[in-house]
Amino acid sequence: MDDYIERLRSGALKLYALEKELPPADAVRVRRKFVEEETGTSLDAVGAFSIGLDPVVRKNIENMIGTVQVPLGVAGPLRVNGEYAAGAYYLPLATTEGALVASVNRGCAVITRAGGADVRILRDGMTRAPAFAARSVVHAREVAAWVTEHLDAIREAAESTTSHGKLLGLAPYVAGTTVFVRMEYDTKDAMGMNMVTIASAKAGEVIERETGARLVALSGNLCTDKKPAAINLIEGRGKTLVAGVSLADDLIAALLKTDAETLAEVNQRKNLVGSALAGSLGFNAHAANVIAAAFIACGQDAAHVVEGSSCITTVERVDGGAYVSVTIPSLAVGTVGGGTGIETQRECLGILGVGGGGSPPGTNAKKFAEIVAAGVLAGEISLLGALGAQHLARAHRELGRG
Amino acid sequence: MDDYIERLRSGALKLYALEKELPPADAVRVRRKFVEEETGTSLDAVGAFSIGLDPVVRKNIENMIGTVQVPLGVAGPLRVNGEYAAGAYYLPLATTEGALVASVNRGCAVITRAGGADVRILRDGMTRAPAFAARSVVHAREVAAWVTEHLDAIREAAESTTSHGKLLGLAPYVAGTTVFVRMEYDTKDAMGMNMVTIASAKAGEVIERETGARLVALSGNLCTDKKPAAINLIEGRGKTLVAGVSLADDLIAALLKTDAETLAEVNQRKNLVGSALAGSLGFNAHAANVIAAAFIACGQDAAHVVEGSSCITTVERVDGGAYVSVTIPSLAVGTVGGGTGIETQRECLGILGVGGGGSPPGTNAKKFAEIVAAGVLAGEISLLGALGAQHLARAHRELGRG
Amino acid sequence: MDDYIERLRSGALKLYALEKELPPADAVRVRRKFVEEETGTSLDAVGAFSIGLDPVVRKNIENMIGTVQVPLGVAGPLRVNGEYAAGAYYLPLATTEGALVASVNRGCAVITRAGGADVRILRDGMTRAPAFAARSVVHAREVAAWVTEHLDAIREAAESTTSHGKLLGLAPYVAGTTVFVRMEYDTKDAMGMNMVTIASAKAGEVIERETGARLVALSGNLCTDKKPAAINLIEGRGKTLVAGVSLADDLIAALLKTDAETLAEVNQRKNLVGSALAGSLGFNAHAANVIAAAFIACGQDAAHVVEGSSCITTVERVDGGAYVSVTIPSLAVGTVGGGTGIETQRECLGILGVGGGGSPPGTNAKKFAEIVAAGVLAGEISLLGALGAQHLARAHRELGRG
Amino acid sequence: MDDYIERLRSGALKLYALEKELPPADAVRVRRKFVEEETGTSLDAVGAFSIGLDPVVRKNIENMIGTVQVPLGVAGPLRVNGEYAAGAYYLPLATTEGALVASVNRGCAVITRAGGADVRILRDGMTRAPAFAARSVVHAREVAAWVTEHLDAIREAAESTTSHGKLLGLAPYVAGTTVFVRMEYDTKDAMGMNMVTIASAKAGEVIERETGARLVALSGNLCTDKKPAAINLIEGRGKTLVAGVSLADDLIAALLKTDAETLAEVNQRKNLVGSALAGSLGFNAHAANVIAAAFIACGQDAAHVVEGSSCITTVERVDGGAYVSVTIPSLAVGTVGGGTGIETQRECLGILGVGGGGSPPGTNAKKFAEIVAAGVLAGEISLLGALGAQHLARAHRELGRG
Repeated sequence: MDDYIERLRSGALKLYALEKELPPADAVRVRRKFVEEETGTSLDAVGAFSIGLDPVVRKNIENMIGTVQVPLGVAGPLRVNGEYAAGAYYLPLATTEGALVASVNRGCAVITRAGGADVRILRDGMTRAPAFAARSVVHAREVAAWVTEHLDAIREAAESTTSHGKLLGLAPYVAGTTVFVRMEYDTKDAMGMNMVTIASAKAGEVIERETGARLVALSGNLCTDKKPAAINLIEGRGKTLVAGVSLADDLIAALLKTDAETLAEVNQRKNLVGSALAGSLGFNAHAANVIAAAFIACGQDAAHVVEGSSCITTVERVDGGAYVSVTIPSLAVGTVGGGTGIETQRECLGILGVGGGGSPPGTNAKKFAEIVAAGVLAGEISLLGALGAQHLARAHRELGRG
Repeated sequence: MDDYIERLRSGALKLYALEKELPPADAVRVRRKFVEEETGTSLDAVGAFSIGLDPVVRKNIENMIGTVQVPLGVAGPLRVNGEYAAGAYYLPLATTEGALVASVNRGCAVITRAGGADVRILRDGMTRAPAFAARSVVHAREVAAWVTEHLDAIREAAESTTSHGKLLGLAPYVAGTTVFVRMEYDTKDAMGMNMVTIASAKAGEVIERETGARLVALSGNLCTDKKPAAINLIEGRGKTLVAGVSLADDLIAALLKTDAETLAEVNQRKNLVGSALAGSLGFNAHAANVIAAAFIACGQDAAHVVEGSSCITTVERVDGGAYVSVTIPSLAVGTVGGGTGIETQRECLGILGVGGGGSPPGTNAKKFAEIVAAGVLAGEISLLGALGAQHLARAHRELGRG
Repeated sequence: MDDYIERLRSGALKLYALEKELPPADAVRVRRKFVEEETGTSLDAVGAFSIGLDPVVRKNIENMIGTVQVPLGVAGPLRVNGEYAAGAYYLPLATTEGALVASVNRGCAVITRAGGADVRILRDGMTRAPAFAARSVVHAREVAAWVTEHLDAIREAAESTTSHGKLLGLAPYVAGTTVFVRMEYDTKDAMGMNMVTIASAKAGEVIERETGARLVALSGNLCTDKKPAAINLIEGRGKTLVAGVSLADDLIAALLKTDAETLAEVNQRKNLVGSALAGSLGFNAHAANVIAAAFIACGQDAAHVVEGSSCITTVERVDGGAYVSVTIPSLAVGTVGGGTGIETQRECLGILGVGGGGSPPGTNAKKFAEIVAAGVLAGEISLLGALGAQHLARAHRELGRG
Repeated sequence: MDDYIERLRSGALKLYALEKELPPADAVRVRRKFVEEETGTSLDAVGAFSIGLDPVVRKNIENMIGTVQVPLGVAGPLRVNGEYAAGAYYLPLATTEGALVASVNRGCAVITRAGGADVRILRDGMTRAPAFAARSVVHAREVAAWVTEHLDAIREAAESTTSHGKLLGLAPYVAGTTVFVRMEYDTKDAMGMNMVTIASAKAGEVIERETGARLVALSGNLCTDKKPAAINLIEGRGKTLVAGVSLADDLIAALLKTDAETLAEVNQRKNLVGSALAGSLGFNAHAANVIAAAFIACGQDAAHVVEGSSCITTVERVDGGAYVSVTIPSLAVGTVGGGTGIETQRECLGILGVGGGGSPPGTNAKKFAEIVAAGVLAGEISLLGALGAQHLARAHRELGRG
């Protein structure tokens, strides 16, 4: 081992090249040892993992030195009345933020007692929007027209790269001499970012060759990936979902210790008016909390929490109670690919019965998305209720967390 | 064990109440067994963790059933020329997204070869903005005036709840009859959300009592917490940082296989014009990727990736090369509290030499923030370079990931 | 006259009812006299108008007391290379802001010397988006599906109300239980807001009847009319245009007293980075100035300056100079209807050769839009040049305006 | 005259140079004649104006050829309970959009019957934010620190240019190497854009000289002038106002033919949820309509309608009725300078009793702003009521407008 470390230290061996000389377990161990020595810190805990290394170092990470263990809890049972998810679920949540699982759990109880959360997928498609440089605005207009008129040729190129993905459509956007071609794909049970990137690269070659516009960037930020963006709020990205539940007055009183009118007022002043004045693209209480915890648990791309956070929560007073809803414009999820194959994450998907590819393809990802949306609804109901009862801070104090 | 499971199944025992009857390890085991049986799925991997349970079930999670293991890699060495971080660091990144660590690692090499990333903290303060309901717009105006004129009284109340936090200032915002009081705190080495929530609750009581406005929500979304919001982009939240590096032409050619002009063009068309047309609040390539991976590794709140994603990346051509910068308006980090005390996360902070409270207080969190900012810069440089060379998709194809 | 004023004062006669008892000229005179007496101010200038009253009091205004005279100047000749406008034009601009016409005029000279502005219309359609209240999120999803599947029936209803307008398409947007149906119309030479409102009302009746969702508001703000909105920036409203021109180095030096590099730098730091940090939906220098002045001159709806202001300006360095462009996502213009029939406004349209309906229908409005877009480009070039030369303030000082 | 036209045609005389050779009336006449001949259109109506030319051609416009006459009506009486405006007013509105004045007029009746609109100014200050280029992010941070620490020196320079303006404060914003210094001024009764531009130029010279940062643009778009921007929504620009009124159930029924619950529902679904989903920075029904018409009537800068349109409208159910409010973050108004001195515009200000400078200075502009805010509230109430009653389209049809 010391020999490798010596070579790493001298620069003769690159840190990322260890797997070329050693089996994964050894490579990871040597690298960890090297980092320990370079930084003078012990990494025993990081090294005490139990997941298998082979696929991980090939598919999920480079320069691996071990794992981080994120505490995992469950919230539920959570009754979901979706088109793909129908039943009661225990939602796995990986987080280090105390009170979060408890809060979502309370929301699950409310929803389940109310008969379950209705959930619907409004649209479904992963996007990628390469940017092309045209010679002039006249050329830009021609490029935009060309892509619209040659959907079939573009589709053929794009789909030649993938056995699963389907190009659902495209839309060109022009700003000066830059043409962005936002392509939307059905990626079945995969979240699909890599799939659509590869497909769009092929499509981009065709567009470049036929129009003479230069392909400047495979992602031109009209996608929009991992940046908050109104285009995702408006047109969606990944899965667009809506979830809702009707809460009766006595249920609100019993479980949330508040009333429908207060829930509606808190939602209006905080989630609607407050977010409006903040220049926000998210009109919710804490959707990101639930999405982040579910994503980490289930092997999703945690950076996609950004898109997920653009959620709109509404509370309407209805006869005898309140109707609460969440609209999640952009949820990027998959049950195959990414981190879904790692043992612990795969088990979390298993808790929900959505591990691996669905039958027919795409149904597992859709089911997963519906459950997450219901979980977001649970989180919103719980926090709005807590705020309504003005006991958020008290709760934190009692739990001794700060 | 079966007895507990029976009681859980019958509803006689609540899932979250197990810790009241059993030691943590047993409670977690029973709960996991219960979920396994309810869902018909094995959770062996989830159960094969090595972190200590006692503090975790008290501080970090409820309804715990085990952990999720997230692959951990390092990128570096990354030379940082900050006011708190000065030296070369290995940045721990926990992710399941293949190619990410490799990409950041390449950016680190570029920066380090260029002499290091200059980083500065522009401002530092965690915010909380309770919402109050006034009786009329006239009353709202009076409430806003009152809080401005009674900073001392509000500070006294707020700081009575904390031994570390300091109220730096406040600003009232009014929309109709709702008054939002955005309070900003120095939370030293803690990220501080809970600290400022508790302090703001106390401050809110004073405001409510003295002005007669009703405290409707401890968080009124002007904070803005975990939602993309222009107010954070403009005024900052947590730490606001800027990082930059000057890259010489030959370095760009050698390491990034592109040139300064192309880097500048990609950045303008994608990060500036593309994000503009997308109605985005983030003008970068993939800041969220680096922040998410560093946050999960280091025990930060992963939902804060949302704020972090509002980053502005610039590339300017300068004599003999390009100057690349990232501006991160809102980075919420801490080296104490939250998930920072869990063994694996604590080790990750240890790699950077920022575990626990700094001396003087606050310096560890500041140092950590500077390193993360430099990491974001590395990620931007690498991806812009890759896009410039039009080989992003090719890279994915070669790595066999989809 | 005194009798009428007495009755107005006593409340026996309503101010707006004067036209029911008197010919327009007398009604306007009595009303003006009444306001003069009530407010103790002379309105001689307001009363010294020369436009004809009959159509105006029927179509353009209620409670009329006279007119406001807005100074009118021209900028030009401005060479435009559009698909509808081809030639050199004098752009009429009505404004009270000194230096504006001079500035645009300078930009026109630059463009014309450079061979003219290329202009293209990217899309064209006026939108209206009524909001419907569904019973639940499930119902909302059904309503959204219904409208997508029944485009023909909706079109039939919508087009039954108009002899000119054509429903180009529609898109449903859902937030919780609210369904917004954004309908897009070809309104030919009319700006078309009233036309599409009436057509959408009829369409809304059909949707309400067939789906059972309640029509809550004929405009649900997804249109979006007269509010800054990313949906208009992204998807367009009215006409979406792009205009560009290539400026040679010597031209920039001679007419703008600056250089291509400086133009590009000013544009990047101000229009791109500055607007990004401001959380803006407009990435330009002063597009609103030109649009406001052209709109008031030509009888357009001045409140539509709001949408017009979401313009993206770019400057790219190209061999031997700079390429400057403006992208105007949302320009709502017409050459018939609104204020286009009033004598002075009609003459302004006449200056551009676009008064009244075009042949074929729609071509006059398109030509007008192209000229305005070129005018916006002129304004941007001039102001960017002035900023580049750092003499904006000096110019103001010399003109003695403050 | 023909001689001048000949010289204009040959290029020997520039269009804008006519005033150097001729008295204003002749210059305008010759120019109009030239445009008539060049474009083959008669401009008799444009030439039939009655305002005085001397100050106009010096202060308000260049290349003048006449005026455009905009129909002027009044809405009122409108009772306002402000700090500067107290009484009943007839609001002058110049517009060509039929039904607008009638609609506002109806809202005025509702407000006045309800006892008047409460209005308060929340803050008041015109902003200008020059952009400086620093050498690096480190330098940028230093520049930002310098301006914060040298407020007095900057104030001295800024105020040396004006006898009225006062620098209220400043805030630096940094993005990469660009530093924006947003300076806020009390401009008394002037809208003040030119005043603050000149003052900021002087301040900019000091900053440039002392810090070594290059002044790139006197306006860096953080101002933000005439572009929709969250910074104005959040921090305000010009005057920030709030207006509200409590409407009793019977009043709503009698005058608006709807009820409190419907008003609240329409506002929530349209102005809050609809605007949220549209990615809008304006949460209102048609504030821009009222602001545009009042601005044109009263000699304000019509392009400032953009900022004005970022208004938040709320409707809350209260015991026995509804409380309706508007919050206008950014209203740029003045009663001196700009177009306020032209005869017809001056008379419009006279109708409101706010012509010229107030005593003490600033009070006329404040009074004017309060009245406009009340007018916006009237417009919102009327349109929300009309939508509630689902008769907007019917109203248009009855008035025969399209």
